[in-house]
Amino acid sequence: MTPDDLILVSVDDHVVEPPTMFDQHLPAAVRSNAPRMVRKKDGSDVWVWGGEQIPNLALNAVVGRPPEEYGMEPTSYEQLRPGTYDIHERVRDMNANGMLASLCFPSFPMLCGERFYKHADRQVAHTVLQAYNDWHIDEWCGSYPGRFIPLALVPLWDPQLMAAEVRRAARKGCHAVSFTESPDAHGLPSLHDPHWDPFWKACVEEGTVICIHIGTGSGMKFSSMDAPVDVMITVQPIACVNCAADLLWSRVLKEFPTIRIAMSEGGIGWMPYFLERADYVHQHHSAWTHQDFGGKKPSDVWREHMIVCFIDDAIGVKNRHAIGIDTITWECDYPHSDTTWPRSPEILWRSLEGVPDAEIHKITHENALRVFRLDPFTHRPREQCTVAALRAESPDVDLALRSQGGKPPAADRRPVTTSDILRQLATVYGSAPE
Amino acid sequence: MTPDDLILVSVDDHVVEPPTMFDQHLPAAVRSNAPRMVRKKDGSDVWVWGGEQIPNLALNAVVGRPPEEYGMEPTSYEQLRPGTYDIHERVRDMNANGMLASLCFPSFPMLCGERFYKHADRQVAHTVLQAYNDWHIDEWCGSYPGRFIPLALVPLWDPQLMAAEVRRAARKGCHAVSFTESPDAHGLPSLHDPHWDPFWKACVEEGTVICIHIGTGSGMKFSSMDAPVDVMITVQPIACVNCAADLLWSRVLKEFPTIRIAMSEGGIGWMPYFLERADYVHQHHSAWTHQDFGGKKPSDVWREHMIVCFIDDAIGVKNRHAIGIDTITWECDYPHSDTTWPRSPEILWRSLEGVPDAEIHKITHENALRVFRLDPFTHRPREQCTVAALRAESPDVDLALRSQGGKPPAADRRPVTTSDILRQLATVYGSAPE
Repeated sequence: MTPDDLILVSVDDHVVEPPTMFDQHLPAAVRSNAPRMVRKKDGSDVWVWGGEQIPNLALNAVVGRPPEEYGMEPTSYEQLRPGTYDIHERVRDMNANGMLASLCFPSFPMLCGERFYKHADRQVAHTVLQAYNDWHIDEWCGSYPGRFIPLALVPLWDPQLMAAEVRRAARKGCHAVSFTESPDAHGLPSLHDPHWDPFWKACVEEGTVICIHIGTGSGMKFSSMDAPVDVMITVQPIACVNCAADLLWSRVLKEFPTIRIAMSEGGIGWMPYFLERADYVHQHHSAWTHQDFGGKKPSDVWREHMIVCFIDDAIGVKNRHAIGIDTITWECDYPHSDTTWPRSPEILWRSLEGVPDAEIHKITHENALRVFRLDPFTHRPREQCTVAALRAESPDVDLALRSQGGKPPAADRRPVTTSDILRQLATVYGSAPE
Repeated sequence: MTPDDLILVSVDDHVVEPPTMFDQHLPAAVRSNAPRMVRKKDGSDVWVWGGEQIPNLALNAVVGRPPEEYGMEPTSYEQLRPGTYDIHERVRDMNANGMLASLCFPSFPMLCGERFYKHADRQVAHTVLQAYNDWHIDEWCGSYPGRFIPLALVPLWDPQLMAAEVRRAARKGCHAVSFTESPDAHGLPSLHDPHWDPFWKACVEEGTVICIHIGTGSGMKFSSMDAPVDVMITVQPIACVNCAADLLWSRVLKEFPTIRIAMSEGGIGWMPYFLERADYVHQHHSAWTHQDFGGKKPSDVWREHMIVCFIDDAIGVKNRHAIGIDTITWECDYPHSDTTWPRSPEILWRSLEGVPDAEIHKITHENALRVFRLDPFTHRPREQCTVAALRAESPDVDLALRSQGGKPPAADRRPVTTSDILRQLATVYGSAPE
């Protein structure tokens, strides 16, 4: 086997929504209350909704730019690689990276639809959220059957409405939904609260996977203002250990025996430690904390419910059996700065040395296809799904890095700090639409 | 080699200060302003200082109690195993566990002396802190030469005074000092600020190791109020990844090339992931974040400076070369609830299967003795330092678990939550001294 023979399914990528996204999916009565794209005098593009502007058009969607420009937030469509927002270009970019299928998280609605939850008019928010799901499932993913795992957003403010949306999306063939790693960080009941039971129940009954992306709790994990920004970039994925622990000890895994939860972008190399630690805590402390896993170890229960993923994680692949070989999936993170695009097959291959073919297949696509219920092979024969076959379909994709300009977060060569980044974001968020 | 042949040096244990600790170490003028031990009407013992009572006599010092009582905070000396506060009983308990040497963190001053920093009268606080160090170095550790690695506390409010105390302690043979994982969490400049340079400089010049214990930032890592308390217990050690990242990317490691920092109670199994992640971040992002390790990888620089430790961590030992075999040490955590006492040799042995003897020696004692500058073999021949030899010295230590009563945090068998634990702590802190 060579990198050319891999079949790659990525369970964590991102779509930048195109300006036309609501054109086909909203009732006429709501259209005037929907988000619309506005070009400002300074040339930047922002979504405007309910009197507010939403400027993170494409937070961190820097793919295709030279690394020297990674810190400069894209502020207009011109600065973006078209594959970020154009479905046909996206599929060509996937082909160029030998990638068969992709699950795409949203951009302007925020990773689990927090934007809709924050909107003042909840009736409007609900209608727009449903339009978002219709666009995402029918238009974005629906344009290329077998190439995408659709991901629905849910109205976080009402578990009954969430359940209904899970069921509506499932009827459209969507069996993944985005949720927060910490509802209490958004002023909602914690995930230990029975408040959420209608949502868990709907997911279980519809066979829908709950995807929890890093950064959906209290946002970015900044250290002190004068800390190098690299601190945040380093700890952002592993910070989901807090949510992992919340889930592991919660009543949710115990009372919903077939619930499936995906940790998105959390990495995997730290998990053998985490699971060993949980088993140690259970052995040492359950006599007084009264935790009862019915004779199983916490790590056993984890493996029954959880799906995890990695971008580039040699130590995690090495310790794959301490994690659970049937729980591991892979992600590309296109178009964010941590992506391995367009050299994913080659970069991933470095971690796969010595891994038996059967286990490679589980990690690269079988686990993802099984859990997320996608069957691409009904749409194209398996031999046309490999890295080599897909790359051969789009041999003309331009992979050259392209400078898009923009103002660097720090003017000189000193290390970029938290406060440099916050200042840059404040500039983006600062001026009113014109 | 068998568990009997191990030589065990623990770099993280805890002392519960005895009521007599200040008797010999304070100038007469300050004695009336010093902390004193008061027995309350309800039978509990508290330190009283400057009009405040300090009731965590012995936070979590539950060694020797049945696990069913771990949640019940000891509130009086009678509830404690004497080895927690009596140096002669401590050494007998160490012998019973086959443990040659120990580094002890404080209890009532809090882990890095935050108690002194919070005291209103800083002149008094400074004098009492120095008395604490004198007691700890001369009386506690000094009673059994070669059996203890002394650990000094420093006046966190003044880097010049900190530097002076580092030098004073070094002259007394103490080459370890306790510091916080997050000074900014205490309202002080972050560790990225040159503010701390006099302290770093003194540590470098005196060959003093800076020990950073978990929980010295913003305290315990509680999740939501209704979360099972097991969540906190599980993530408390790995939460030090935030401090680890702060240190790794800081100017401190770059500008003080011989500085040595110990991560205390953080575990090790997650570190291969952390170091791989840091190298990935450096490779992907340094072009715009301007981090410069002079051609080295961040993980190389980490290994030059850091000392790490574990209680029971099979996956960490398995991946020891991805961590750095010369950086790993072991800890017992006596008398806290996570301790493996009195079966540490047998429990540790399970993780050591297949590890060459030379590497076992590094992990169990050689790394600790080298970095912390202790030479026990000048005080007793090496063959009298093994588990078997030490156990033979105190064959009569009573290892039976002993119930000490106390009120459980939750009255029924439901899982104990964050709010149960906070309510219990509030009770302890609640009533005034009588």
